[in-house]
Amino acid sequence: MHAKVVIGPRVRKSPFFDDTIAAGADQFTIYNHMYMPSGFGDPLGDYWQLINSVAMWDVSCERQVQLSGPDAGQLADYLSTRDLLNCEIGIGKYAPMTNYLGYLINDPVAQRIEEDVYWLSIADNDQLFAAQAVAAERGLRVEVSEPDVSPLAIQGPKSFDVAATLLGDWVRDLRYFHFRASEIEGIPLIVARSGWSKQGGFELYLRDGKRGHDLWQLVKEAGAPYGIKAGNPNAIERIESGLVNFGSDNDDCTDPFEMGLDAFIDLDNDRDFIGKKPLLEIAKRGPKRGRVGLFLDGAPLAGNEQKYPIEQNGKVVGLLNAHTFSPRLERNIAIALLNREIPDDGLSAALPDGRRNVQVTTLPFI
Amino acid sequence: MHAKVVIGPRVRKSPFFDDTIAAGADQFTIYNHMYMPSGFGDPLGDYWQLINSVAMWDVSCERQVQLSGPDAGQLADYLSTRDLLNCEIGIGKYAPMTNYLGYLINDPVAQRIEEDVYWLSIADNDQLFAAQAVAAERGLRVEVSEPDVSPLAIQGPKSFDVAATLLGDWVRDLRYFHFRASEIEGIPLIVARSGWSKQGGFELYLRDGKRGHDLWQLVKEAGAPYGIKAGNPNAIERIESGLVNFGSDNDDCTDPFEMGLDAFIDLDNDRDFIGKKPLLEIAKRGPKRGRVGLFLDGAPLAGNEQKYPIEQNGKVVGLLNAHTFSPRLERNIAIALLNREIPDDGLSAALPDGRRNVQVTTLPFI
Repeated sequence: MHAKVVIGPRVRKSPFFDDTIAAGADQFTIYNHMYMPSGFGDPLGDYWQLINSVAMWDVSCERQVQLSGPDAGQLADYLSTRDLLNCEIGIGKYAPMTNYLGYLINDPVAQRIEEDVYWLSIADNDQLFAAQAVAAERGLRVEVSEPDVSPLAIQGPKSFDVAATLLGDWVRDLRYFHFRASEIEGIPLIVARSGWSKQGGFELYLRDGKRGHDLWQLVKEAGAPYGIKAGNPNAIERIESGLVNFGSDNDDCTDPFEMGLDAFIDLDNDRDFIGKKPLLEIAKRGPKRGRVGLFLDGAPLAGNEQKYPIEQNGKVVGLLNAHTFSPRLERNIAIALLNREIPDDGLSAALPDGRRNVQVTTLPFI
Repeated sequence: MHAKVVIGPRVRKSPFFDDTIAAGADQFTIYNHMYMPSGFGDPLGDYWQLINSVAMWDVSCERQVQLSGPDAGQLADYLSTRDLLNCEIGIGKYAPMTNYLGYLINDPVAQRIEEDVYWLSIADNDQLFAAQAVAAERGLRVEVSEPDVSPLAIQGPKSFDVAATLLGDWVRDLRYFHFRASEIEGIPLIVARSGWSKQGGFELYLRDGKRGHDLWQLVKEAGAPYGIKAGNPNAIERIESGLVNFGSDNDDCTDPFEMGLDAFIDLDNDRDFIGKKPLLEIAKRGPKRGRVGLFLDGAPLAGNEQKYPIEQNGKVVGLLNAHTFSPRLERNIAIALLNREIPDDGLSAALPDGRRNVQVTTLPFI
């Protein structure tokens, strides 16, 4: 279906907003109270651009929760399932957050920017207020705020050439999830080898919103010889690559073990963190559901407007959370949360154009 | 500008979503992670419908933070600038929330539903996580959750007839901000005399999302003799009426005194609440800015896509947060945050079509 989005004063505009409009953005979502471009008129073209070349994405809406002060590390660690006490400056960590019941409530990348400054680059909800509450109620010496930081992503195989043109050849050697403070023509940045695709790339964390237009233009110019185009986080590629889309791939009572995030839950030490107790219990009994891949039969699937129940013998046994037609696999694929300990066969989902059989597989697809 | 909104599985759909599409919703925003209709193709028609007749609005995105348990009242009270310890069952209270610095972070209506159950009907941000953090860190005996509750508003002078048809004549005597548990054809509701307009009306808090379509159809049928139409919270009327639009009318460091919410800040007793200490200081020194009305000269203003600085002698002295052309006043009007203790004259704002002179006035306009 097609509907317009209201552009109004209640929702924030990114520092790159006008540039994305000029570049042809004609579709938006709202993420962390900010407009995020999510279409430039050619979804399939955008996909191949990311796979074969290089795209620039306005992901300013990845807002940072900044923890600043002598107890910043202690607070970051308490908010995350991941051990962040021993977080090195310059190396980002994927750091899931759970609530007091052990359910996943966000999945930021945590970056220790300075000795006493941590950033949590959060998915779409307001962990700022909760972090402020925890800090105040526990009497921690830490200021919790949202800094003037707006990431611009450069993604795709040619992103290395573009980043090297902008920043110098050192950036080619930056390891995955590592980052470094830098600048381009006086524009202050954190440069991270990261991004929400598996095609390689960088995120330029702009540290001065007033320079948004300048940074956009510099990236556009540096990228021109490599055919860079404006785009947005790609729904097709992320399903192929099995990347987590918080809010899509989970519900309000999904634990991180169900999401397959075991590697990011540090239970085997003395540290305390929100949700530790229930997570210890879940670790013992095992998660009830699992995040899996699905193949769907039938004609290529188009739009993906909602979630669908997965059924087996007339019983709901899971939720199909996101689907797409994979241009590289030439198959319909999906990401689902499926009950464990059920037989693998006889699964189906009623999509708007009819019921489809589904086959379970592992993630990622590619 | 016109851009499409993505309809996808990451953002929630209201129980009335399909009915609003069928009724012609062609414009949406996203509010509390849920699509909210914000246009049906005829903004001016929608305005006069609200002023002269009756409109039905899907405001499911007014999500509830439910506090349940023996310490629910204590937590509600601690989260709010308002004294909620002595909150009667059946009478809603506008209950601003501030952070630990005394800045406004939400402005819910609080309703005590049962002895040990409070609802905070929140504006667009996730106070749920913060309330859970406060409850856990303070060791309060209270469960904090988002219940299956989705308000449907009936607003306008004929809303009383529609509500009486649906619920019986008792509803005509329900006082402003009072509410009562009720049902229509087995659909469980909280019926409140409230809503985000000054044209009179009700909010039906649907307590079973599966009955969304049924409730929508019943309201539509009951309203048919009165000419009811599907609409949405009205940007023109709310500016005329001076209603607060959280996120539009404030920024990240606006205190509730600046917003003119003095009547809802209970400082003169022993109760402790988040932000009390800084608010005591602000109360002593006086707020730095004030929420005021403005008249703008020149041709009727059209769309309102952003905020604009207000200038005086080349200096920024405030922010024009929302503007509209008022069909009833036949003037351009706006809501602003303006520095105090500046002369009233020589104020202007640079809008996209040129600089406009502005005159300060009090709220509401009508």
